Amino acid sequence: MVLDRISSPDDLKKLDSDELIALAGELRSLIIKTVSANGGHLASNLGIVELTIALHYVFCSPEDRIIWDVGHQSYTHKVLTGRKDRFPSIRTYKGLSGFPKIEESPHDPFGTGHSSTSISAALGILEARDRHHQDFKVIAVIGDGALSGGLAFEGLNNAGHLKKDLIVILNDNEMSISPNVGALSSYMNRILTDERYRRFKKETKSFLEGIPRVGGQVAKIAQKAEETLKGMLLPGMLFEELGFDYIGPIDGHNIDQLIETLKRIRSSASPTLIHVISKKGKGYEFSEKDPCVFHGIGPFEVETGSPISSGAVSYSAAFGNCLSGLAEKDPRIIAITAAMKEGTGLDCFAERFPDRIYDVGIAEQHAVTFAAGLAAGGLRPVVAIYSTFLQRAYDQIVHDVCLQRLPVVFAVDRCGFVGEDGPTHHGVFDLSYLRHIPNLTVLAPKDTDELTSMLAWALDHTGPSAIRYPRGRAPLAGTPSSPVSLGKAELLRDGTDIVFIAAGNTALAAMKAADRLAAAGIEAAVVNARFIKPLDRELILNVTARIPRAITVEENVLQGGFGSAVLECLNEAGKYPLRFLRVGIPDAFIEQGSMERLREICGLDENGLFATALAFAQGPSAIP
Amino acid sequence: MVLDRISSPDDLKKLDSDELIALAGELRSLIIKTVSANGGHLASNLGIVELTIALHYVFCSPEDRIIWDVGHQSYTHKVLTGRKDRFPSIRTYKGLSGFPKIEESPHDPFGTGHSSTSISAALGILEARDRHHQDFKVIAVIGDGALSGGLAFEGLNNAGHLKKDLIVILNDNEMSISPNVGALSSYMNRILTDERYRRFKKETKSFLEGIPRVGGQVAKIAQKAEETLKGMLLPGMLFEELGFDYIGPIDGHNIDQLIETLKRIRSSASPTLIHVISKKGKGYEFSEKDPCVFHGIGPFEVETGSPISSGAVSYSAAFGNCLSGLAEKDPRIIAITAAMKEGTGLDCFAERFPDRIYDVGIAEQHAVTFAAGLAAGGLRPVVAIYSTFLQRAYDQIVHDVCLQRLPVVFAVDRCGFVGEDGPTHHGVFDLSYLRHIPNLTVLAPKDTDELTSMLAWALDHTGPSAIRYPRGRAPLAGTPSSPVSLGKAELLRDGTDIVFIAAGNTALAAMKAADRLAAAGIEAAVVNARFIKPLDRELILNVTARIPRAITVEENVLQGGFGSAVLECLNEAGKYPLRFLRVGIPDAFIEQGSMERLREICGLDENGLFATALAFAQGPSAIP
Repeated sequence: MVLDRISSPDDLKKLDSDELIALAGELRSLIIKTVSANGGHLASNLGIVELTIALHYVFCSPEDRIIWDVGHQSYTHKVLTGRKDRFPSIRTYKGLSGFPKIEESPHDPFGTGHSSTSISAALGILEARDRHHQDFKVIAVIGDGALSGGLAFEGLNNAGHLKKDLIVILNDNEMSISPNVGALSSYMNRILTDERYRRFKKETKSFLEGIPRVGGQVAKIAQKAEETLKGMLLPGMLFEELGFDYIGPIDGHNIDQLIETLKRIRSSASPTLIHVISKKGKGYEFSEKDPCVFHGIGPFEVETGSPISSGAVSYSAAFGNCLSGLAEKDPRIIAITAAMKEGTGLDCFAERFPDRIYDVGIAEQHAVTFAAGLAAGGLRPVVAIYSTFLQRAYDQIVHDVCLQRLPVVFAVDRCGFVGEDGPTHHGVFDLSYLRHIPNLTVLAPKDTDELTSMLAWALDHTGPSAIRYPRGRAPLAGTPSSPVSLGKAELLRDGTDIVFIAAGNTALAAMKAADRLAAAGIEAAVVNARFIKPLDRELILNVTARIPRAITVEENVLQGGFGSAVLECLNEAGKYPLRFLRVGIPDAFIEQGSMERLREICGLDENGLFATALAFAQGPSAIP
Repeated sequence: MVLDRISSPDDLKKLDSDELIALAGELRSLIIKTVSANGGHLASNLGIVELTIALHYVFCSPEDRIIWDVGHQSYTHKVLTGRKDRFPSIRTYKGLSGFPKIEESPHDPFGTGHSSTSISAALGILEARDRHHQDFKVIAVIGDGALSGGLAFEGLNNAGHLKKDLIVILNDNEMSISPNVGALSSYMNRILTDERYRRFKKETKSFLEGIPRVGGQVAKIAQKAEETLKGMLLPGMLFEELGFDYIGPIDGHNIDQLIETLKRIRSSASPTLIHVISKKGKGYEFSEKDPCVFHGIGPFEVETGSPISSGAVSYSAAFGNCLSGLAEKDPRIIAITAAMKEGTGLDCFAERFPDRIYDVGIAEQHAVTFAAGLAAGGLRPVVAIYSTFLQRAYDQIVHDVCLQRLPVVFAVDRCGFVGEDGPTHHGVFDLSYLRHIPNLTVLAPKDTDELTSMLAWALDHTGPSAIRYPRGRAPLAGTPSSPVSLGKAELLRDGTDIVFIAAGNTALAAMKAADRLAAAGIEAAVVNARFIKPLDRELILNVTARIPRAITVEENVLQGGFGSAVLECLNEAGKYPLRFLRVGIPDAFIEQGSMERLREICGLDENGLFATALAFAQGPSAIP
């Protein structure tokens, strides 16, 4: 194995062309094997093997800084930069991160996870370099999907202005996560496919060269034409206009060509954009055929490409199915996704109503303001988005939606822990960043059934609302839900010793803990809050008045979260339960690991809630 | 007066060219007079008078929808659309808003206030139109400064993809708020100034037309060249590449030309961008000379252009001066602004250290991620930004700065009420959206002196921090500040009956209220919290243990804010003061008005705090 001889990028530089090609194959096998066991981002990593090899062959990391946009394509980079042995631990608890991470390696100069940050971060590092009179190169590697995020444009715009030697590598696979959309995407597509451009460029050049250099106006104009055309008919004009030298398109799977090109631009003194064309999922039959499915995937069988998964319905699927049903009856319902049609469960909606869904690409801010516009125009838009990505549109939620009370429904998926993707993807802040926005109703269902009831309710509600629900599959509560009604919680179980006031699916863990507490002689009540905002003040005051101990439970940070809202409610009523405890996520970024493991660590599972409640119930019941 | 005859856009359509020109002059006088009395956005409004007249002459508002980006240029629009009589009330309490507002008029189809939203919102309204089979035009009017915001690009990208008849009017005055920056700006500048482009286009055309139409390769190529050049040598190529038909540049002060152009494109079926060149501050000597100063201005003397203002030092000026002093000693200090050099007080810094400040234009997301890159490169960046605009970069603060513990200092200006700009500009959410972010230290100074101590402290601190301070000028507390120390509050005054725990400058109002309470026989202590995060747990537990009533005070929403943090702290300690009250901003968007008036409404001034504390002290001291 060539890979056996590689423990740092330096070792790479000793290989010849054939060995580099062999290495690419070995890396692909390793990635497929590892992701099939651990889950992870397969397609993006398979598509960028050769480019990563070429980058490390030509540049000298960690001195030269390579910033991977999003970072879900950094597996080859990790293997080549001294993390080969730890690679099987990727995305597991205490293992390698699935994304670049400053603390993990000096070869990761900037952590990523969300899209479109690389150009801005790289530009900052480059400016710092010059102020320190250092001499290294800074390379941002960004996909065509990430380029549609406004932040990337802001970065390009500033980079073109500062005119430093930033290198941007545009890894173009005509996909963001779903197939790419947007005018920029069609523009780049034209670069690749529109023969007219290329032929015209070539023919015009030879035509102009054919004009005899006689004196007079014609020749002068022809000369001028030649100069200008040279500059103007290059395919990367749009980037050229923003101040970048454009090079490309070049084949992202041809190591020799990549190396040659990178060597050539290494000494460039001005902003350079290299347009690389690659195939997402390259080298594995199943991911080549269906790169969307293999974008982020759980464990799967290598031989068949079939995912290994349980049968239960996921929250995302329940959402998508329910929305399709509701849309059947209400033509005003419109779905919006930011490049996450499959992930959010909107694929079935898209099949049934292909003209009633907008995929705006990776552009969360636009998704929200566009939805506000649709709502202002009398429609009922539903923005399906992951909690962590909705962070990008906080200002748009405040101003464009809530200030104007426009009836936009946010279907906030992947709330709480997402597991293996780790801290850049956990959706653990949304209750805190949403519940202080005036006019917004915030809901959290205890299971998939309740999610569908809440969705129907929200689409009937006259103002903006957000429904937050977790990743994955979950059993039903077992008790049929009562109808959803504004600001009304649900008493799932009554008790006399202690009351769990639970947000969302934590109600199920609380129910199980209550069973075990009963066996231990402690009668626990369980409230399913349903509405995080407005809270069911009446029910909360009722249970805390008659039950001596209360525990709020939420899969969200404790600062400003649900428990904090309940505290505020009690404070405003002038009431203080004698003993009150908040269980949730502490004030820290929680690492990666299985959702079960992370819930265990934070005491948010059945065992944790049982143990906490038991100790609490046995402690003093009055303030000392 | 022509203006006397205008009570709706219909009246406009009866005027001839000379009358329209006269009207423009009358509108300018009205705007200058009104803004000189009320304060407001002068320069942007003077620059857009003719364009607004032309838009209302050609289109039929409110049926046709005009969306003003940012909205600080909508004064002429307001006067022409039935709000002439109420115009003198603009920006006053209960008066007309300084921005478009849905509730104010059917002519305001979408409220604005923050930059770069108009294209996205207009696109949403346009798509809703088509789904309702309606027939009207949608026009987004956006400045060149706002175009550098990533959201605008996301909107353009999606609009070019959807290929509907969206009209975007680019009002180019080569200024955002400060002079414009960025590659896009130089690009547009080239369109205007580079004669090479225009002459080449013209000459090539005549050259090509001069070629005899003989058979053979040359003529075929020439024909193709002609076609392609027509499409490609237009100045707006960048927009053309994004799927827009580009028209321009045209003179933004020539009403006839504007009308003619708008009429021509009214029936266009595809996305069209009209590039209008205007002069910010047009028609008033002082604002033409210094459009930055007259961007957003308080009351001023019309004859001299001199602002009518008090002499005290503003927080912004104190910040700018202090940062300049600190930068003298520490070469790692770098300042970053998003088109707000003057507003944030960085103008003096820019004069002393022109090469140590980055104005990234209206691009808050980039400002923060770029700063993270600078910090990763070993520098000490200070991002000076208004609280309300920092909302745009919430995700970047979480991921790019705090997750990586990078030592970026956020100088969060204009916190709390900003007064006349109203709900889109109040900085009343930052304590709630910042304090739940792990690793971030959040500070609030009681006065300008303390701001400078905190800034020095923050630049010495190893992690990220945010210092939030209000708009305007304020007296000093009168007591010299003790040195700033991580997580340490300051007991400004001790007492036995009640304790104010105050965030930021509310401490001064609390001190005054305490004086009056003393006269009424009530001994009030006052704590200046200094650190919103981490809280001074020790001092808070100390005062609440020995003083029977506590009142938290903050100029921030109560949901998840400072009082909520103190509640959490008491809850975590298992302590509950017998009586605890939170004073702050209720769960609603607070309207415009003077800062004094708004503080009064929310009980945040001396009178309010005195009255609240008095009633509270006279009520029961134990839980009933």
